This record gives sequence, structure tokens and C-alpha cells, in this order.
Amino acid sequence: MAARVGLWMVGAWGGVATTVATGLSALRQGLTEPMGLVTAQEPFTKLPLAGWDDFVIGGHDIRDTTYAAEANVLWEKSRVFSPGLLQQVAEDFAVWDQNIRPGVMVNVGERIKSFAGPKTRAFAEDTPLAAITRIRRDLEEFQVRHALDRVVVVNVASTEPPPESSLKSMTWPAMKSLIDSGDHCPIPSSTLYAIAAFESGCAHVNFTPSVGTDLPALNELALERKVVHCGRDGKTGETLLKSVLGPMFAARNLHVNSWVGHNIFGNMDGKVLDDPANKANKVQSKDHLLTEILGYKPQTLVSIEYIESLGDWKTAWDHIHFEGFLGTKMAMQFTWQGCDSLLAAPLVLDLVRLTEFEARSGSQGLMTFLGSFFKSPMGCSTPEFAAQYRQLVDWAESRF
Amino acid sequence: MAARVGLWMVGAWGGVATTVATGLSALRQGLTEPMGLVTAQEPFTKLPLAGWDDFVIGGHDIRDTTYAAEANVLWEKSRVFSPGLLQQVAEDFAVWDQNIRPGVMVNVGERIKSFAGPKTRAFAEDTPLAAITRIRRDLEEFQVRHALDRVVVVNVASTEPPPESSLKSMTWPAMKSLIDSGDHCPIPSSTLYAIAAFESGCAHVNFTPSVGTDLPALNELALERKVVHCGRDGKTGETLLKSVLGPMFAARNLHVNSWVGHNIFGNMDGKVLDDPANKANKVQSKDHLLTEILGYKPQTLVSIEYIESLGDWKTAWDHIHFEGFLGTKMAMQFTWQGCDSLLAAPLVLDLVRLTEFEARSGSQGLMTFLGSFFKSPMGCSTPEFAAQYRQLVDWAESRF
Amino acid sequence: MAARVGLWMVGAWGGVATTVATGLSALRQGLTEPMGLVTAQEPFTKLPLAGWDDFVIGGHDIRDTTYAAEANVLWEKSRVFSPGLLQQVAEDFAVWDQNIRPGVMVNVGERIKSFAGPKTRAFAEDTPLAAITRIRRDLEEFQVRHALDRVVVVNVASTEPPPESSLKSMTWPAMKSLIDSGDHCPIPSSTLYAIAAFESGCAHVNFTPSVGTDLPALNELALERKVVHCGRDGKTGETLLKSVLGPMFAARNLHVNSWVGHNIFGNMDGKVLDDPANKANKVQSKDHLLTEILGYKPQTLVSIEYIESLGDWKTAWDHIHFEGFLGTKMAMQFTWQGCDSLLAAPLVLDLVRLTEFEARSGSQGLMTFLGSFFKSPMGCSTPEFAAQYRQLVDWAESRF
Amino acid sequence: MAARVGLWMVGAWGGVATTVATGLSALRQGLTEPMGLVTAQEPFTKLPLAGWDDFVIGGHDIRDTTYAAEANVLWEKSRVFSPGLLQQVAEDFAVWDQNIRPGVMVNVGERIKSFAGPKTRAFAEDTPLAAITRIRRDLEEFQVRHALDRVVVVNVASTEPPPESSLKSMTWPAMKSLIDSGDHCPIPSSTLYAIAAFESGCAHVNFTPSVGTDLPALNELALERKVVHCGRDGKTGETLLKSVLGPMFAARNLHVNSWVGHNIFGNMDGKVLDDPANKANKVQSKDHLLTEILGYKPQTLVSIEYIESLGDWKTAWDHIHFEGFLGTKMAMQFTWQGCDSLLAAPLVLDLVRLTEFEARSGSQGLMTFLGSFFKSPMGCSTPEFAAQYRQLVDWAESRF
Repeated sequence: MAARVGLWMVGAWGGVATTVATGLSALRQGLTEPMGLVTAQEPFTKLPLAGWDDFVIGGHDIRDTTYAAEANVLWEKSRVFSPGLLQQVAEDFAVWDQNIRPGVMVNVGERIKSFAGPKTRAFAEDTPLAAITRIRRDLEEFQVRHALDRVVVVNVASTEPPPESSLKSMTWPAMKSLIDSGDHCPIPSSTLYAIAAFESGCAHVNFTPSVGTDLPALNELALERKVVHCGRDGKTGETLLKSVLGPMFAARNLHVNSWVGHNIFGNMDGKVLDDPANKANKVQSKDHLLTEILGYKPQTLVSIEYIESLGDWKTAWDHIHFEGFLGTKMAMQFTWQGCDSLLAAPLVLDLVRLTEFEARSGSQGLMTFLGSFFKSPMGCSTPEFAAQYRQLVDWAESRF
Repeated sequence: MAARVGLWMVGAWGGVATTVATGLSALRQGLTEPMGLVTAQEPFTKLPLAGWDDFVIGGHDIRDTTYAAEANVLWEKSRVFSPGLLQQVAEDFAVWDQNIRPGVMVNVGERIKSFAGPKTRAFAEDTPLAAITRIRRDLEEFQVRHALDRVVVVNVASTEPPPESSLKSMTWPAMKSLIDSGDHCPIPSSTLYAIAAFESGCAHVNFTPSVGTDLPALNELALERKVVHCGRDGKTGETLLKSVLGPMFAARNLHVNSWVGHNIFGNMDGKVLDDPANKANKVQSKDHLLTEILGYKPQTLVSIEYIESLGDWKTAWDHIHFEGFLGTKMAMQFTWQGCDSLLAAPLVLDLVRLTEFEARSGSQGLMTFLGSFFKSPMGCSTPEFAAQYRQLVDWAESRF
Repeated sequence: MAARVGLWMVGAWGGVATTVATGLSALRQGLTEPMGLVTAQEPFTKLPLAGWDDFVIGGHDIRDTTYAAEANVLWEKSRVFSPGLLQQVAEDFAVWDQNIRPGVMVNVGERIKSFAGPKTRAFAEDTPLAAITRIRRDLEEFQVRHALDRVVVVNVASTEPPPESSLKSMTWPAMKSLIDSGDHCPIPSSTLYAIAAFESGCAHVNFTPSVGTDLPALNELALERKVVHCGRDGKTGETLLKSVLGPMFAARNLHVNSWVGHNIFGNMDGKVLDDPANKANKVQSKDHLLTEILGYKPQTLVSIEYIESLGDWKTAWDHIHFEGFLGTKMAMQFTWQGCDSLLAAPLVLDLVRLTEFEARSGSQGLMTFLGSFFKSPMGCSTPEFAAQYRQLVDWAESRF
Repeated sequence: MAARVGLWMVGAWGGVATTVATGLSALRQGLTEPMGLVTAQEPFTKLPLAGWDDFVIGGHDIRDTTYAAEANVLWEKSRVFSPGLLQQVAEDFAVWDQNIRPGVMVNVGERIKSFAGPKTRAFAEDTPLAAITRIRRDLEEFQVRHALDRVVVVNVASTEPPPESSLKSMTWPAMKSLIDSGDHCPIPSSTLYAIAAFESGCAHVNFTPSVGTDLPALNELALERKVVHCGRDGKTGETLLKSVLGPMFAARNLHVNSWVGHNIFGNMDGKVLDDPANKANKVQSKDHLLTEILGYKPQTLVSIEYIESLGDWKTAWDHIHFEGFLGTKMAMQFTWQGCDSLLAAPLVLDLVRLTEFEARSGSQGLMTFLGSFFKSPMGCSTPEFAAQYRQLVDWAESRF
């Protein structure tokens, strides 16, 4: 059974992580129903997943702040949580704040660097090797100090620019040599964190569009170290809807001429994506899906824009123009008004519970049954949400 | 292999049937791509389904009109089809017009009666028994005159008021006695057509919310006569979306607080539904679904209103209010601007092809694998569209 | 200049009144910017309107509750205000609670009666005469106790059913005789409050669809007593938009074929309007407008439905179908997501300030320059918002 | 009274001009109601404006095509007009085709040049002076051949890139010298057409975002030549709505935090605007408005994207985030589904009738009373649509 589990978040004081912390504390204290948590319902409740009391939160962040301050920003700007709730979780916040260490900013792009606080800037000249070493030390110290049986590292940090494509064809030994050589090295932080996690025997979840573990070399390393991992890019809003609605148009042989999606929101993720270099990663992650589902490429457009007043409330408008019988053109539009961090955080908790369970069960390598959680699911055989969810349920039923 | 197939429509000059006729003629002549037709794509193309040239159209209607006139109304009011296309299908229209016979208006409600033309009004005093006899004679004469191997009867007529609930507990022998007795008899026309179809050895598809074959007695009769049937109420717009989106909210444990759906449109179906008696049947057909999918009953509201200027363009606005992590309320809205007859007609052709194939294959009784086509699918084990479509694909693959 | 002004609200603990109280206290303490207040901007700031410190709140309500409790409900259900703000206004709340007296429920309909608390139920058998007498006593006692120079009575109570039409052709002497006779009397509470106000020398603002002062007899009485009044039905959301957008379609000679408006919300107003008798008054108030603006009657539909989860957030979807050049049909849709009480409350404060100023200036009878504030503006010469607002500005400029 | 009037369109075979031609012919033959025409309603019907029979169409275009071909493209792609109507106007089309001359492409940008046909490419090396000379010759020949009393030149061509800012500070004599010198000259075609028009004594209407007459030098020339002109950029859709809705937010003191507008459409205008150089002119024309109306600058975003399947149907989604009482954030969204050419064409006819009337009445220089027709109205004292329309009505009433 589950014992003590470390939940180590990269981007530990960001909006998603702060919501994870708030929610975890509220769930431990029985202050909230487990809404939005996939693993809180059948058939997953039949599995011996870790309970809310089993978790200790730690992580890396490049900013110097506290959970209380960040949660208060979410309350002030986006009216999520409530002052009463934040008082009730303050004690857990204070404890977990102690477990946050300065982050790494190798190859993260200028935009992200601009947010770094003094503690992280002190390590600004770190080589990739030094960064890995420091991350490993932080992870191992966390595990020892809290007597943890297992640690799951989750990337919930801001989106990096896409890395050089040369990384995709590199083996793990080649990548390792490159790191050790001290030469110029294009490996971004998201991947360095993952390397450190694997080398420390930790499982890894990549909840962001950053490349992270989505490289052959990383999968090689995971198998070598016998750890599990999954990713890429949590599927919370517009893309979730594409993976749900797209199959309907396909099944009905309604030809999608164009699918336009405009996303506006005002949280820090939005500020980072305002930089075209970072946005490229995100848009790419959102755009390939329809072609896979439909079997042809409709005209598509995806925009993501920072609109400050919206705070964490992501509003998406999608216009789908399709052709039916006798070439008749019809349209569907939707608007999605969801709170980004609140949609993402329960999925992070779900992924950590499922990943910890797999690690405990002795699995290793890529977990392909988690496709329903990701925009760009690694190793998943289908782009359709219903089929992905079926895979998750089938997996759960195979594990009773 | 398929030989000559009769496609007998009840409501033969209505919007859906007129679109079926237009589309069938266009498909035979190669004037259009088979968009919107489920059976035009994999894996259904691997089955030896009837081809477009194999069909002869006939039917019943209570109005006196022609395909050319009705198609022109659709063009004038709703800008579907085009004058050029209507010229090209005029010859088929003229031939098929010859096969339409006066309809039956036993227990159809005052609203529908008000549309009847003189030919149908001549039979206004018909008893149910007389109506069945007349329908059978029309069907059998159609089959003989056109040397048809099989006839599929499809109900695409206006929605009747719900019948007395006593019918639901009646066996076929009891129903038969009641009909033969000449006593007051609450059996509505949609069921009389189905009885006549079964007694004449025809298959039956109920594409409307009218009760039709959705009675134990009718299934009994179908098995006795060794015919196949399916229904109820073609799933073309808002309900299709509920069966696609509902499972997403369920899978993600997002609690749906309320789901409001307002439908506006201006075709004849809209005029009929403007009568509260007829509307009751429709709203009921649209409203039970969410509870089945979610496992609890959110507050729901479904309105259907006749707005003349919209013609055949049904516009639906749905507002879904749901609660996520930490009880955070979020919203999704969609508008669906679809042309009702153009969405329905290809599904009618699909159902007729699949039904004819099953009849040819020697099946009998209720076809439960067609759930994805219906709002209230009889005998279907799941309310989720993706699972229903999976059943259809599985069936097809079992038939190669 | 303004001295001490009584703001007496009928429906004193309702959502709008509670928001007025919260806002007034916040404005007095400088805790908020005067957003949403028309009179806080040019050219109205040039008039010597009463300041926030000049007001004392009192009123009637049929329920037994407190401002603190009601404000907390708004916070809990609709996430308006904030716990911090509610603490800061608690002291004013406690003082004003002391000024609320049991209401009157003569001819208010069953739905409203069902909400009455014991204090009001004690007066359940009151005749109209007894009710007027009691209201007058309350008003006069309020004025004396707080040494007020002037009192403005504002109706912000739930909507009554429409009264018998005989009232519309009654003179004030006839109405007076009827009241004094003790015979059956169809005069609803909204009008009884207004009579009492006028007889006590108070000004009156009817912010609701209830008939209130919208009767010739009442205007007669106002002139006799030399008091000012205005109304009817605050224009806060969908109707505001109709009076803004309608003139655009008219000016451009775009023919509006249909205008459909669906309103959903979950506050107490919604519960009251769920009763068809009460709703009739509201829908009537919303529906006449377009014909006046356009000069012809498009097909219209207005629905108002109670959806509990929405709380005070009124969501309206409007679909406007219009015809342009060469008969081309086009469409505009909008959704309005506004918080009803927060939209209404500043207008109440505006109206009270403007009314008090007029009373102080010695005006009497109907104030026709306030048309921009009302759905059914009494005595206003134009249904167009821009022209109505122009009238308000012109009035202000004439008063410097 | 009006006699024979030349309507000379620059961009004569474009979507707007083709719709003008179609509509003018239909109006002459009484085939359509004058919907969408401002001048077809009170009080403008009281002015002796030119009748539909008084007009002769001519113009310049850089492409080689015909009205019949262009109108058919609109029918095929966008389902506007109808084959029957196009037959009825064919004769007028054939006559007017004879009056179209090769256009000018000096400083129009690469995107527009790429559309030029051989007849226009033959003049590709024309200097500005040569271009003016050729335009004048075409205009004067048109006037003589058709014995026209007056000619109104209307620019309905594709949007050019913005010109060098040096033009804005140039006097007419300086500009004239520059043209005559044969030196490099940044004057774009839209301005060259206007110069030629003025020099030939023609009135000018700039219906596009191109700079055209919006330069001090041009106004100088107009006064010198005693001709009237107006502009800039017809206000047909989203911007019209901004000028209608913006004043409502201002009047109600609702603080607009952000106003996001996304426009998608698939006509040739869309293809031209897909080039960032050309788009700059358009976005600028759409974006300054809100600041003028509100008195502060909210965060704004305007996107215009080419989505082929939409044809001439411009779909705009606007999201307006605003703050009301006590800082409460609310939202309005709208979608506008309008057919661009069909919205623009009647305004072109209105402007030509009003301009011809002013010319006939002996006015000269800029017509400032036409602000309601334009996105960036030259010389107009107010950005609010209702006030602009009031100015138009006031002008008309002054002219009886």
C-alpha cells in the first residue's frame, strides 16, 4: 500500500502548483468534495491509490514567493478560492514553502528568465551538468528528510521555447557525453529536471508543452533507471473539446472546412506565451490534433492572447465550419469559460496518484494508458478522448 | 447482393423526405460527394450495402403536393439546394411523386390534422383497422408494381402527441383484439403504419419522436413476422452534442449543475411542435439523456420555439454550468447552426441501407447496434455517442 | 444644498437593496471607485447632488433577516462582494437594519406571500387603508427620528402580478373612495406604498415592473401633493441592449425578422418570476420596446427561467435575425453575463440622487428626463437609449 | 432635379462593386425591396435624391473579368444573390462591363499587384503623372459618352498599405510639384484616383481604409476645384457595433477593461488583408475608436484572418470584459454573421445619392455630416453612432 509520497513540482509556486497545494490541503482536511478529480470516481476508487494524507509537497521555482502570496493573487485577480479557505490551508502552505528550492533556467528563453528572483539568479551561470547535480541533490535531500517511499516529479512550469531539433535524434549516451563535455548544449531545463529525476529514481510527469521527456534519449534513460513517466501538456480546455467534438464530425462524415480557435486569458502562463518563441511550442501542441482525428487537414487557426483583466479565466471561442449533405455549409461555435489552474490542478493530483501506483507496482518506462490527460500524449494509440478514456478505464480494471 | 429496394417514407413530402429524394437523385447522378453519409466511409464501405441505383422511393403523406414544390420551398425559405440542382433532379421527382399515397391521421392531434389535404381528408373517418388495411394495400401494390425485393418503411412524419400509457403494457394479441373490435382505440398513426409494415413483411425505421414501434406489442409482432426494426428519433443536433459532451464532463468528474438548451427554427416541424401536445413528445425525447450519462440529474431546461424567419436552419444555444475543483463554477456555451433536413436526410439513407442489409441477412426484431443514430435508441446499452458509434463499427466488422 | 436624505427601500433586504446598502457604505468609507454610477461622471458631477454621507437607509420588507445575512448569501452563491468588504460595512449594516419595518402584502400574489416572515404575516389581514396608514406611520417616524430633510421611497421589491385593468381608468378621487370604502379593492402593494409615500410628502421611484405609480390616479395625487416621481422597471441588461442595438438596425434600414431573448438566472427575483402570474408583468415590460423602435413588429420571444446554479448572474442569449440588401438574411447573437444586483444598485443610487435634487429644486409630478434608466419609462418621448441619455445630459446642463 | 449621374467605382469588379451593380439593376427593375438602404427611409425620402434609373455605372479595375463572372463567384461561394436574379440583371451587367477600364497600381503593394490582369499590367510602369492623366481621360470620356451631368467616384478597391507619413504634412502645391517632377513619389493609387477625380470636377467617396483623400493636400485641391468628398472606410460590421455599444458602456460608467475582436472571412478582401502591410491600415482604422468613445484606453485586440470556407460571410466574435459597481467584473460577447458585400453595397448607393445631391446643391469640400457611414469619418465631431446618425437626420431636415 501507499506510504509516504513526495509530490515535487517544477514551477512549485505557479498557478497550477499553488492550486494543487490549496486543493491537497483542503482535501486532507475534508473541506471540499473531490470534484474535478478523475481518480475520485469509479472504477479508480477500487484501486489502492495514495490517499491525500500520504503526500508531502516540495519543488523548484525560479521566483521567490510563498504559497500564501500566490494563492492570494489568484483570489484577488480571479476570484477563485476564498479568504476563508486560504486561512484554513495556511498552515500546510507554511510547511510546504520550506520545501521549495531555487529553480534552473538553462535554455528557458528570455521571457522566463525575466521572472527569476535573486536566489535563482545566483545560479544563472550553471552548466547543464551543474544544474542536474543541484536538482538531484534537492530531490534526494527531500526524500531523505521526509522519509519518503517514492517521489513523483511533475513539471508545471512555464512553457519554454522549442529546443533544437538535433536533440530528437540523440541517444542517451550521446546526450550524456554532451552534458559531461561542458560544451554548448541545447538541452532545456524541462529535460534537465527529468534527467535528474530519473537518475534519482523518481517518476516524472510532464504536464507542460515543454519538451521534457519527449525525447528518445529520455525514454532510454527511464528504462535504464526503471522509472515510469508520462506526458505531454495537460489537456484542460479547448484541446479537450477538440478531442471530444472532432470524432463526432468524423463519425458523421461531416467535412470540417475550418476550425478557428481564439484563446484569451491573463495569468502568468499568458504572459510567457506572449513571447512568440514560447508560444510556438504551445500552438504546435494544440494544432496537430484535428488532422489526426479527421484524416485530412482542415484550415485551422489557433491564437493565444494575453488579456490581463481575465486573470486565470481562460475564455476560448471556437468556430467550426463544416459541410454536410449536398455540400451544405453549417456552423458550430462554442465558448469555454474555464479557470485554467482549477482545471489543471486536479489532473495533476490524478496523474501523481496513478503514476505513484504504477511505480509502486513495479512498472517502468512510458505509461501509455494516460493519453486522456494530455494534449500530445506520448505513446498513445488514439487521438480521440472517448477512446483514450476507455484505455484508462480498461487499465484500471486490469489492475484490480 | 442488393437488388431492388423500396424506400417508403411516411411523411413522404416533408422536409426530411424531400431532402432524401433530392439527395438520392443527386447521388445516383454523381452530382454530389457523399458527405454526411456515415455509410459512405470506412468500415461501412466494405459491406455489400445497397447502391443508390437500387432504390425506388414511395410513401404516404397527408398533404397534396409534389417534390418539386416542396424542394422549391426549402430553396426559397432556407437557401438549401440550388435551382440548378433542382432542375437536374426534376425527372426523378416526377417519377417518385407517382408513388405517394394519401396518409393516415388517426390520433395524430389537431395540429397535424390541420395540414391535411383533400385526398387524406376523404379517409378522415377511417377506423384503425381500415387504416391498416389501406396502408398494407399501398405497400403491397408498391412492392409488386416495382418488382421490389424488399421494402423499408421509414417514419419521417411530424411528431404526434404522446399516446395513452395503457399501450405500453399491452401484448400484441390484446392490441390486435382492440383494433379488430372497432372500439375506441388510442393507437396513433405512427404505430398503425408500423403494424401495417410488419404485417406486409417490411422493415421499419422510426426516425421521429412519435411512439411508432417503441411498444412491447410491436416488438412481439416484429419477431412474429421475422422483420427488423429500429428507432427512435434521429439524433441530428443538440442531443447529438449532449451525447458527445456529456461523457466528457462525466469522465472528468466535472459536476454539471445546469444544462439549458434553447432551440429555435422555422420549418413545418417547428409549426407542429408549437402545439404543446406535440412538443411534449419531443422535449421528453431530448431531456432524459443527461441523467443517464451523468448518473445524477442536473437542472435542465429544453425549449423548442417556432421562429419563422429561420426556415430549416435550427439554431440551438446551450449553456452548461459546471463545477470543478474546489467547487469552482465554470461555463461552456455553444451555438449550433445546422440545417435540420440536411442533417437528417443522410442518416435516413444510412439507416435504410443498414436495415436493408440486416433484413437481407436474415436478422429479425430490434436492431440494437444503431444507437448512435437515435435520441432515444431502443435496446441500446449506452447513452454515450462514442460508445454507440463503437458498437456500430464493431457490428460492421463482424459482418465482413 | 443637500442635507439629510432618507433612502427608503421597499424590499429593503432584497438583493438590489442589499447591494445598495453595501455600496453606499463602501462609497462613504472610500473603499471603492464609483464605477457603474452614472452620476459620478460628467456632466452630473457639476450638479450639487447629495453626497454619500447625506443618506440614511430605511425600508420595508416582508422577510425577517439582516443585511449581513443577505450580503453573505450573495457572496456565497454568486461570489460578489468579498468577506473583507463585508466586514468593513458591517457597522453600517447593523445601524440600517434597525430602520427596516414589516412590509405589506396586499394583492402581491401567492408566490411573494410564501416568502413572508412572521412579522409581516401578523399584518396579513390588513385592508388597503390599514396598510397605507401603517406605511405612512413608518415613513413619518423614520423622517422624524433621523431628522431628515427629505425622503425618497424606492420600490426594489419582487415583481407583483399585473393588477386589474380597471385601475387604469380610475381617477384619484375614485381610487381614494374605493380604498376608504373597505370594499374589495384590487390595488396592489406597489401602489399602496406609492400612495403612502405621496401622502407623506415623499418622492417615489419605481424600479420594478410592478405597476406602482404607473396609473393616472397616482400622477394626479403626486401633483396634488407636489411631489416628484419616476419609473418603471430599471433597465439593466437585455432590454438596455435592445434599446441600444434596435436603433442601429432601424437607422441602417436592416429589417429585423425575429429577435429571440432567453434569460436565465438563479436569484430570488428568478424564483418569483417562475410564477407565470408574476412573469407576465416582466415579459410585457421587456417586449413592447422593439416595435416602438423599429416601427413594425418583428417576431419576438422573451423567456425568463430560474436556473439555481447561476445565482445573481443573469445570462441572456439573444439571437437577432435580420434581412439586408437584396433580402439577404444575416444574424447577430450576443450573450450578456451580468450580475443583476450589481447592475441595478448604482442606478438606484443615481435615481435617488437625481430625484432628491429635483425635489429639493421644487419640481413636482412625473420626471420625464429619466427615461434612460427604465425599461418602460413613464412620460419619455423616445424608446432609444442614446436619445434618452441625451435628454438626461440636456436636463443636467439646464440645471447648472 | 437629378439628371444623369455617373457612378464610377475604383475596384469596379470587386465584391462590393459587383453587389452595387446587382442591386442597382434589381432596384431599377423593381425586383427587390430597398432594404439596407438608409436613404430609402424617412426623412431622406423627402429629399429629391437621384433615382435608380438616373445612374450609369463605370469604373477602373486591375483585373480582367465581368460582372456576370464575379456575381457568379459570390453565388457559388457565399450563396448570396440567386441564379434567377442574376439572369434578370444580366443585360445591365453586359452594358456596364463596357464602361470598366484598366486600373492603376502605383504604390498598392505586392499583394494587390499579384491580382492584376494583362490590361493593367500593360501600364505597370506608369508614373503617378501618367496614371492621373489616364484616369482623367477615362473619367472625362465616360462623362461625355453617357452625357452625364455629374460623376461620383467611389473607392471600393482592396486596401493598400499605409503610405509614408511625409504625405500628411504636404500642401497641394508641394504634392503637385512632386508629381510633376517625375521623382520617386510615395503617393498611393487611392490618392491618385482622387486627384484625377477632383481635377475632372468629380465628387469622391473613399469607402476603404486606404488613405485616398484623407490628406490636407487633397482637401485643399477639393476646395480649389469646388468639389465635395467624404470618407474613410465604410462602417459595416464590428466597428459599427463598437460605435453603438461603446457609448452604452460610457453612459453607464461601466469600465471596459478589455475588448477583444476576432474577425474571420474568406473573400478577396480577406486575401489582401492576409498581407501584414495591408492589414496594418485596416486594424488601425478599427482600433482607435474605443479610446475616443470611452475617454481612456482599454486593452484591445483586433484580429482579421482569412478563412476560405466563409466566403463573403464575415464572422466576428467580440468579448468585452467590463467592471461595474464595487469593481465587479462582467462580460458581454457577441457574434456577428454578416455578408460583407451585401452590408457595404447599399451604403455605397446611399453615399453616392447623398454626395450627388450635395454636389448638385453647390456644396464643396469635406462633407462632415456623413460620419455615421465611416469607421474613420473625416471631419466628424463625434465617434458615437447615434450622434452621427442624428447629424445625418439634422442635415436632411435642413435641406427640405
